[in-house]
Amino acid sequence: MLEGRRIVLLAEEGFEDSELEGTLRALKDAGARVIIVGSGSQESYTGRRDRVVIKADTSADRVRIEDFDAVIIPGGYAPDRMRMYQSMIDLVRKANELGKVVAAICHGPQLLISAEILGGKRVTSWPSLAIDLKNAGAGWVDQPVVQDGNLITSRKPADIPRFNKAIIEALRVHYRCSSETWVGIKNIV
Amino acid sequence: MLEGRRIVLLAEEGFEDSELEGTLRALKDAGARVIIVGSGSQESYTGRRDRVVIKADTSADRVRIEDFDAVIIPGGYAPDRMRMYQSMIDLVRKANELGKVVAAICHGPQLLISAEILGGKRVTSWPSLAIDLKNAGAGWVDQPVVQDGNLITSRKPADIPRFNKAIIEALRVHYRCSSETWVGIKNIV
Repeated sequence: MLEGRRIVLLAEEGFEDSELEGTLRALKDAGARVIIVGSGSQESYTGRRDRVVIKADTSADRVRIEDFDAVIIPGGYAPDRMRMYQSMIDLVRKANELGKVVAAICHGPQLLISAEILGGKRVTSWPSLAIDLKNAGAGWVDQPVVQDGNLITSRKPADIPRFNKAIIEALRVHYRCSSETWVGIKNIV
Repeated sequence: MLEGRRIVLLAEEGFEDSELEGTLRALKDAGARVIIVGSGSQESYTGRRDRVVIKADTSADRVRIEDFDAVIIPGGYAPDRMRMYQSMIDLVRKANELGKVVAAICHGPQLLISAEILGGKRVTSWPSLAIDLKNAGAGWVDQPVVQDGNLITSRKPADIPRFNKAIIEALRVHYRCSSETWVGIKNIV
């Protein structure tokens, strides 16, 4: 289904193991090419459950986002670290500007706050962040998956199947949309 | 110095070991009575470094904040959990309303965001939260310790000695201030 699609999956120390692993596998199974992009702080990153260790293919400052179709942000403690790196913030901001699919689960939306791309957007997240997302100008709802244009968000590990399905569907249907094309695509999942 | 002062030290799973331990010891050494207040989720809590385990004396819903002089929030992963409990949010909000000393270090200010007490306040924190604190209406500065009236904040474990000193001084000088008395006391540290 996703032959030819190229996807950036962000990683940093302390990611939620099941979220990184579950989305990586689903996207690969769907035929996409996924590269693991770290901050450059380490060569590989360990999940917060000590169950998954993932080697970074490259770092955020070396990625030309124009060459990719989506950026995925797993949750856990990793997003709090990711937002300390301007290169990771800039990657997400530029991906959004170009209308790429931007998807974040659990604590992943913390990086969306830092990228300042949430004004007027409808999102969900791990509930502890709800107030931070509202303060960043987003409308927060408690749903397994929320899509607002190119932006896809989910709450927690239990939402992974629906999160993956929404990403795959967005990439299948709206491949290489311009950011204008996404306007009005809200909650189609 | 702090004989007769009664202090609430909040705890949840994953606190920054040195921050909870360092402030607890300094306040006890200064003569204060410190009680450990959890969310009620567990009987004891383990720090993120697996070095300190602390037993909760009581839970937030059982504390009459009128009987205390200060609320302290350590950092680490714990504040992200604390803000999931309305009783912990309410405790901080009420402490602030009554002009008690409210002190938070590292990720501790996440709970101040949830308590919605930061409008127009000058604060610091672990730098990943700076944008969340600004979005909550605070003025964020990068300093080891910042005091704005009854509110004391610090950035990280290296700031613990200055954080403790500011708390002790505030409790010594301004014991039982009303919230009005605190107005205008900014950055006296």
